[in-house]
Amino acid sequence: MTQDPLRWEVLDSTYISRHQYFTARRDRCRRPDGVIVPEYYVVELPPSVCVVALTEDREAVMIRQYRHPIAESILEIPGGFIDPGEDPATAARRELLEETGYAFQDIVPLGRIAANPGLLDNYTWLFLATGGKKVQGQHLDPNEEIEIILQPLDEVREMVLGNRLAQALHTVCFFYAFRYLGDL
Amino acid sequence: MTQDPLRWEVLDSTYISRHQYFTARRDRCRRPDGVIVPEYYVVELPPSVCVVALTEDREAVMIRQYRHPIAESILEIPGGFIDPGEDPATAARRELLEETGYAFQDIVPLGRIAANPGLLDNYTWLFLATGGKKVQGQHLDPNEEIEIILQPLDEVREMVLGNRLAQALHTVCFFYAFRYLGDL
Repeated sequence: MTQDPLRWEVLDSTYISRHQYFTARRDRCRRPDGVIVPEYYVVELPPSVCVVALTEDREAVMIRQYRHPIAESILEIPGGFIDPGEDPATAARRELLEETGYAFQDIVPLGRIAANPGLLDNYTWLFLATGGKKVQGQHLDPNEEIEIILQPLDEVREMVLGNRLAQALHTVCFFYAFRYLGDL
Repeated sequence: MTQDPLRWEVLDSTYISRHQYFTARRDRCRRPDGVIVPEYYVVELPPSVCVVALTEDREAVMIRQYRHPIAESILEIPGGFIDPGEDPATAARRELLEETGYAFQDIVPLGRIAANPGLLDNYTWLFLATGGKKVQGQHLDPNEEIEIILQPLDEVREMVLGNRLAQALHTVCFFYAFRYLGDL
């Protein structure tokens, strides 16, 4: 990877939070034209994955989860953070198994995307998983409370096209998945 | 709007940053089942807009902007935060004019989406603007450095379908815009 010619030089970084669930820093930077940016806030997140996951019967494995920042429980697709040293496809299989108890025959990479690159430093890798079969129960983190919902793919397609999924990363993942499946 | 039955009760909020450009808090919450969530971090952002903006000649008005968190300059669409009391469509027209110097004949709402509802509390309203005409120069904030690029819609379409836009909100906005235009 070549360095971006517009890249800012970081003169100074101060962490304002280093909590296990929330790392944020304030940077002082110099632009290539010499201008000083006195304060730029960055939230550090590990890279993550999300997966459009289809069972053997072509149902989508969806999850319903409460999201405190927007005070709503919303319909999502499985996903999570990539562990250090883990490759994205392995993380996708691991998260699928932990969150849903399903194992999948094929995992197809669909690309990667940034949720909010003006504030967050991570990318999310997008996948399509097919041939899913329930093989175990859920193994959730203490804070996770996740309801599994199997939904016919046609229904989910109408939801996505009708802007009834709330999560941008998940909507993008579905658009690429439908395109891969020749169904857009 | 009815309240979500899974809604958490916020027992205590502590702001860890209240900077003009970065507001973050730590909440202590009680779930409906009585379980206490001791620490949940939320970054507060105003609601925002982004716009697939087409000129009279059906070129997309794209912007290239350096994004410090990912240390890359990326191709984006115009957008920004909604001012207090402003409606989303007005914010879209204002941001288009300020960032690009273009005024548009029609603004079509395409829905709304959340960039990362596990951490950020805002939604982004999506629009398609058509019939754009250059009417003035850019009026940028001191920290903004934005290059305008006019790109034929077909080229942008290939970029979006090929996962060559980095910003999830913008990719979603394009998918809905192409669908609205009957070109997906």
